[in-house]
Amino acid sequence: MSNPLSALWSARSVAVVGASGRPGAVGRLPIEFLQRYGFAGKVCPVRPDGAPVLGLASYPRVVDCPGPIDLAMILVAADRVAAAVDDCVSAGVPVAIVCSSGFAETGEAGALLQDEIVARARAGGLRLVGPNCIGTVGVAHRQVTSFSPLFAGEHTCLVDGSVGFVSQSGALGYGTVSLAFERGLGLAWVVNTGNEADVSAVEVMVALAAEPGCAGLLGYVEGLGDSTALRALAVSGVPVAVLKAGRSDAGQRAAASHTGALAAGDRVVDAVLRQLGIVRADDVDELLDIGDAFAQPRRPAGPRVAVVTTSGGSGILAADAIAACGLRLAELSPATRSALDDVVPAYGATGNPVDVTATVMSNPGLFDHALDLVVDDDGVDLVVACFCVLTGDDVTSVLDSLARAAERSGKPVLVARTGADHLAPSAAARLRAAGLPAYPTPARAVRAAAALHQVSTRPPFAPASGRPRAVAHRAPDATDEEGLKRLLRAAGLPVPAGRLAQSREDAVAAVREAGGRAALKAVVPGLAHKTEAGGVVLDVGTESAAATYDRLVGLGGGVLVEEMVGGGVEALVGVAASPLGPVLTVGPGGVLTELLDDVALRLLPVDRAQVHEVLDETRLGRLLAGVRGDPGADRQALVETVLAVADLVADWPTGFELDLNPVTVLPAGEGVRILDAAYVAPAHAEWR
Amino acid sequence: MSNPLSALWSARSVAVVGASGRPGAVGRLPIEFLQRYGFAGKVCPVRPDGAPVLGLASYPRVVDCPGPIDLAMILVAADRVAAAVDDCVSAGVPVAIVCSSGFAETGEAGALLQDEIVARARAGGLRLVGPNCIGTVGVAHRQVTSFSPLFAGEHTCLVDGSVGFVSQSGALGYGTVSLAFERGLGLAWVVNTGNEADVSAVEVMVALAAEPGCAGLLGYVEGLGDSTALRALAVSGVPVAVLKAGRSDAGQRAAASHTGALAAGDRVVDAVLRQLGIVRADDVDELLDIGDAFAQPRRPAGPRVAVVTTSGGSGILAADAIAACGLRLAELSPATRSALDDVVPAYGATGNPVDVTATVMSNPGLFDHALDLVVDDDGVDLVVACFCVLTGDDVTSVLDSLARAAERSGKPVLVARTGADHLAPSAAARLRAAGLPAYPTPARAVRAAAALHQVSTRPPFAPASGRPRAVAHRAPDATDEEGLKRLLRAAGLPVPAGRLAQSREDAVAAVREAGGRAALKAVVPGLAHKTEAGGVVLDVGTESAAATYDRLVGLGGGVLVEEMVGGGVEALVGVAASPLGPVLTVGPGGVLTELLDDVALRLLPVDRAQVHEVLDETRLGRLLAGVRGDPGADRQALVETVLAVADLVADWPTGFELDLNPVTVLPAGEGVRILDAAYVAPAHAEWR
Repeated sequence: MSNPLSALWSARSVAVVGASGRPGAVGRLPIEFLQRYGFAGKVCPVRPDGAPVLGLASYPRVVDCPGPIDLAMILVAADRVAAAVDDCVSAGVPVAIVCSSGFAETGEAGALLQDEIVARARAGGLRLVGPNCIGTVGVAHRQVTSFSPLFAGEHTCLVDGSVGFVSQSGALGYGTVSLAFERGLGLAWVVNTGNEADVSAVEVMVALAAEPGCAGLLGYVEGLGDSTALRALAVSGVPVAVLKAGRSDAGQRAAASHTGALAAGDRVVDAVLRQLGIVRADDVDELLDIGDAFAQPRRPAGPRVAVVTTSGGSGILAADAIAACGLRLAELSPATRSALDDVVPAYGATGNPVDVTATVMSNPGLFDHALDLVVDDDGVDLVVACFCVLTGDDVTSVLDSLARAAERSGKPVLVARTGADHLAPSAAARLRAAGLPAYPTPARAVRAAAALHQVSTRPPFAPASGRPRAVAHRAPDATDEEGLKRLLRAAGLPVPAGRLAQSREDAVAAVREAGGRAALKAVVPGLAHKTEAGGVVLDVGTESAAATYDRLVGLGGGVLVEEMVGGGVEALVGVAASPLGPVLTVGPGGVLTELLDDVALRLLPVDRAQVHEVLDETRLGRLLAGVRGDPGADRQALVETVLAVADLVADWPTGFELDLNPVTVLPAGEGVRILDAAYVAPAHAEWR
Repeated sequence: MSNPLSALWSARSVAVVGASGRPGAVGRLPIEFLQRYGFAGKVCPVRPDGAPVLGLASYPRVVDCPGPIDLAMILVAADRVAAAVDDCVSAGVPVAIVCSSGFAETGEAGALLQDEIVARARAGGLRLVGPNCIGTVGVAHRQVTSFSPLFAGEHTCLVDGSVGFVSQSGALGYGTVSLAFERGLGLAWVVNTGNEADVSAVEVMVALAAEPGCAGLLGYVEGLGDSTALRALAVSGVPVAVLKAGRSDAGQRAAASHTGALAAGDRVVDAVLRQLGIVRADDVDELLDIGDAFAQPRRPAGPRVAVVTTSGGSGILAADAIAACGLRLAELSPATRSALDDVVPAYGATGNPVDVTATVMSNPGLFDHALDLVVDDDGVDLVVACFCVLTGDDVTSVLDSLARAAERSGKPVLVARTGADHLAPSAAARLRAAGLPAYPTPARAVRAAAALHQVSTRPPFAPASGRPRAVAHRAPDATDEEGLKRLLRAAGLPVPAGRLAQSREDAVAAVREAGGRAALKAVVPGLAHKTEAGGVVLDVGTESAAATYDRLVGLGGGVLVEEMVGGGVEALVGVAASPLGPVLTVGPGGVLTELLDDVALRLLPVDRAQVHEVLDETRLGRLLAGVRGDPGADRQALVETVLAVADLVADWPTGFELDLNPVTVLPAGEGVRILDAAYVAPAHAEWR
């Protein structure tokens, strides 16, 4: 086996450590389930007394089990897990699922115990899933290495499929699995990662992405780890959707800088997932809706959706959802529309949505014809077909038409069926068999279509290696504005001309050097909000330079005299630490930063095209283009500055915040000026 | 019967015009359904040949039917509807449902026919539902005056309830009804209004709100009519949620003014529904989720939600949803938390969400105890209880605990049950019987709770009559800035001092009168974008006044010389026409208007408290309070100005747009100045 994790769903032999014969015992359930669902591999109960369990011979230790063990489930009390881990190491087991609770989730002592078992596993080459988890399922191998009560359900069946599901949460995870099976969404692989002391959910997803036949992956996660595994997942090209919990929990970072405050918490998660082409679902329903779309075999070539509906109302709801989620209503060709006019009744509609009316449904030939016309239109990438009260007689021919149209055109057809199942009890299974995912409302069908579009049409994520750099820049040792600007200037970044004044007389001289008008700024270590503290005076002439100098010196530091830069569009350009890596942060600057709270984020490194994207994601793009007849600003110079900033910080130790705000963007051809700069060293930039 | 519309759900006698004995015929289905579901009233089939239908004697005309007819269903072809309507009028029928198609939905000729039948009905005192609709249901009376195929379903049952549902769309409407019945949500009243030639969905809802025992109303609507019926609905105090389709369709109004562009389309619908205390649902699922919350008997006193969960993951998802939809996580008292510490296992959590862990579920005494502690906390208004894989053994005692806690405390308890039904098949019915609405995910439970909170805690909508006004103001006849400002000044509104200059010399004099610095503005009829056209010059001194005057006169009109008003916060204050009535529009002004696209809207009239609310709904509130250490602006003066504007326009003929932008708000105590004003007369303000 190339990846030891694959034993989580396709083990040839499983040791169950802590096996028990007592009905309902956690140590009995996986053995019961492996037998009930028909696991064909070897099952070795492990218990000290060696007594048989459910008809199987048991062994005192894992090393006693005959032949190699691919996977061990550890179900003993927390204080006996370390010994079980050692035993697995001795037996050469590649991966163990530690189901036992009593670790980091209970507090300090448990966390130490958890560190201990991970250290032993790592030293012995054993990968460890959990602790505090409910186990895994490989449906094709009928491998239920889990003790979830789901599998004790009288009516529970495993449903074959091509989608994997990985969940940090056990109870919610298996609840979600039960909902997937209930709706007929087959899951080939299920893994619950619990405390993630060693193996993370994202790492499991990377392993699953390499499984033959994997059509897509769904995840419930509470943390994403660093971005390494996440980038590997994106590179795999397998469609992925995650429900990332904790939006509200992410909180705000202590605002050491604007950039730090803006590039925080859930906003980073959103931006990074989008950058990597991973769909973010908002709820369990939506996650499974997307799974249904991944599971059908067709992929849209673009965002143009044709809506075919038997109800005008459903058509409007579909159109609303299309507008809301970034898809487009396809524009049907004149030929298609005119051919539809011959088929669709007068009280229907042949624009898009195409309202064929319920009448057409009872006339299968007409429905078939109308559907063919729509699906064959070159302007259509995907079809959403809406039905309401679908009743027995209508189902067969209509579903056959849909299946044929999808099959023949290769375009995905998603169905919204807004009506009770019992009105056409066979419809759900027929739809699924034909690769026609069905949803209870038009909006849910459209949102699933949007996710399918997002993963189908994005360019494959390629990890940027950054631009070749002549020199590796060192991180600043000074954090005051003057020192920082010297460093920026040395790196070729556009900083206003200026210098520290040595005295009140020198301040006057410096203003004269700057052309007779200058900006004077107090340079006081630790003074974060200079403007509010009265530490910035603009447009100072020679006549008032001395008095201004005196006042600013009174704030307790030096005084920087700089050329005046007037007008222009103010931008914020920053880089902040995040658990996922350093994040480029760009948006409107100056007073607009707080007022608009509008930034675009990207994991570094970035390339020129990405910087252009970033500018257009916020209102900065419109400001640069010019509002109400203003002339446009020097966008090109800003792009080069952002790239230069990204280069500058590429070799800095992680954890810092760099905040350039405002970066004034002058009219086209006149460049940009970094008017203010702040740096927070790694130890002081705090991520919550 | 006080309201003729009540025959739509509680008729004592129904005439079915166009009755047929042919199986499957539209003229047979309602008679079949009235018999199948046990309608106890009189059913009179009407058909020219008087042949019996399904064992019932029939009559050639409605006037031939014995005794009074409360309700007629008209199911004949479009060209025979007018005669049927006349017949109903002659028979003194108070209300008819015209199911027939072939009217406005088919085009021009059909629209004329529709106008014709409405005219005949109105002249004869007959209310008319439809045409092009599928009928109505009164569940308590087993009255299925509908031909929806839903009622032919082998397994279809009517489910008693206390919620009404009104839908413009027939197919989508009855699809939704089937989903409601399938989930066990009883609907007492169902009405499909179709083309709404006479009776609108909102009018039906007003009638339903007066029905004894009406716990709430749900609606699917594509239009809202004017706001008269909607205001009456709000005044009724009955909880209402509507799915208003056509968000994307609403389009943008031709931008005759900023106010007109901003107060357009779906944004007005959102604002008005919020103002009236009507919940807006985004999808069919959500509409029914809210219906389930309305149907349970308890109402929250506030927004503080306690989450009790057996799964950490569900708790996080619930907390995320609470933050997203404007509810609050309740802060449990120290006493509650400390008592919970004694009950909840170490790996659970006693903050909120309270994670009692799955272990507590298998120990009913502990679950009961923990739940009691939470529900009795005075800081808790509502409980969301989350379960995942709920299996047979756990259900009885846990649901009993929930039911007891809800009953005893009077606080609503909503349940998120994220797991397959078949794992505890009796749970759904038990939950419903106990008044514990259940949802498949925590987020859906929380969103339903938010809707329940919205309708339970709002102050009852009272139609403001506006303030007593000494004079009725006439609408402007001039639309140029100078004339408009004279009108504003005469109404006591704060317009900068200024006058038209009669000549270049007079311009210099006027600048001198204004204190030596003035703003000069071209007054050119039809020039909408003065600033862009170079028609505004600020801070003009006496030395440059003549030259500036010459240039502005060159634009083809007069020149207004005004006092210079510097600094301050710029606001937009406007009033725009909408199908729902004139809408007050307030937000950040000046260049920020376009940049932020951030306005708050209210139907007029408004009172002082509402104006304060309006200011705080947009970033204008923060701007007025002062950004980055700026001193605050004269908010009080702005409030008075907005009220005066509302008074000013109260008697203007509807359809105009008034756009005051910028209204400069000076520092506290210094008042406001309306720097620019535009007026678009009714004929020119276009609503799309």
